[in-house]
Amino acid sequence: MRYFEDIEVGSTEEFGEYHVTKAEITEFAEQYDPQPFHTDEDAASESAFGELVASGWHTAAMSMRLLVDNYLGDQAGMGGRSADELRWERPVTPGETLSLRLEVVDKHCSESDPQRGYVDNYIEVVNQDDEVVLSYIVTGMIERRKSDE
Amino acid sequence: MRYFEDIEVGSTEEFGEYHVTKAEITEFAEQYDPQPFHTDEDAASESAFGELVASGWHTAAMSMRLLVDNYLGDQAGMGGRSADELRWERPVTPGETLSLRLEVVDKHCSESDPQRGYVDNYIEVVNQDDEVVLSYIVTGMIERRKSDE
Repeated sequence: MRYFEDIEVGSTEEFGEYHVTKAEITEFAEQYDPQPFHTDEDAASESAFGELVASGWHTAAMSMRLLVDNYLGDQAGMGGRSADELRWERPVTPGETLSLRLEVVDKHCSESDPQRGYVDNYIEVVNQDDEVVLSYIVTGMIERRKSDE
Repeated sequence: MRYFEDIEVGSTEEFGEYHVTKAEITEFAEQYDPQPFHTDEDAASESAFGELVASGWHTAAMSMRLLVDNYLGDQAGMGGRSADELRWERPVTPGETLSLRLEVVDKHCSESDPQRGYVDNYIEVVNQDDEVVLSYIVTGMIERRKSDE
């Protein structure tokens, strides 16, 4: 298990492969973001996007799945606290394959809880053409190593 | 249909009622954020949260549904561009009822596209006890009124 002390500021990772399907785009959108350019191919073709595109929050959710499967699994994570400078740089369309780049940009101890630390990660979600579709800074909470570990 | 010109900076809205269920929390988490404190009640009881909590991205997605159902339906929206200062202030647990407060904090024209404007909305998602569980500023793209409309 990796704790706060094991996280190195400046370290980078690149991982994952998330295949985006039309069915998943419309399913997410029907539940959480039922705007026509996310749920209906014909309506989308007449929108500013010109084609069906994933909800921006869906792309964020997909990035979370990439993080859990490839990076957070062996961390003593305590959940997320905040996200900043989130930019939906490009639409995500059916048939794309997404992967994730991560850089640890900062970490700091909690002032109120000696067992807790915070890690700031800069995230870029990129498509199969290496174009950034989404970027953000996420601050996660993580356990500090107990003195006997 | 409401266009960029119809949006008034400083205006506020408060709306919606989203009932959060255990089934929906675990379903979202199994697909997008399979960390034990989001997917498994027993594991969650031994986590820092002490109980099952919704994925932070799930709460963001629920807030989007509240916006689409109650606010964006009659806007000439062109999708979201960015989100800033997103704060998961409190965990969201099964049985809670969420609603949304919105304030239009700024708007500005696009320099590259005369048909497009940007609107910055400050969003607070509150639970049944009027506690803020999530807040963020989201910048949405919206059509400008054509001169003959």
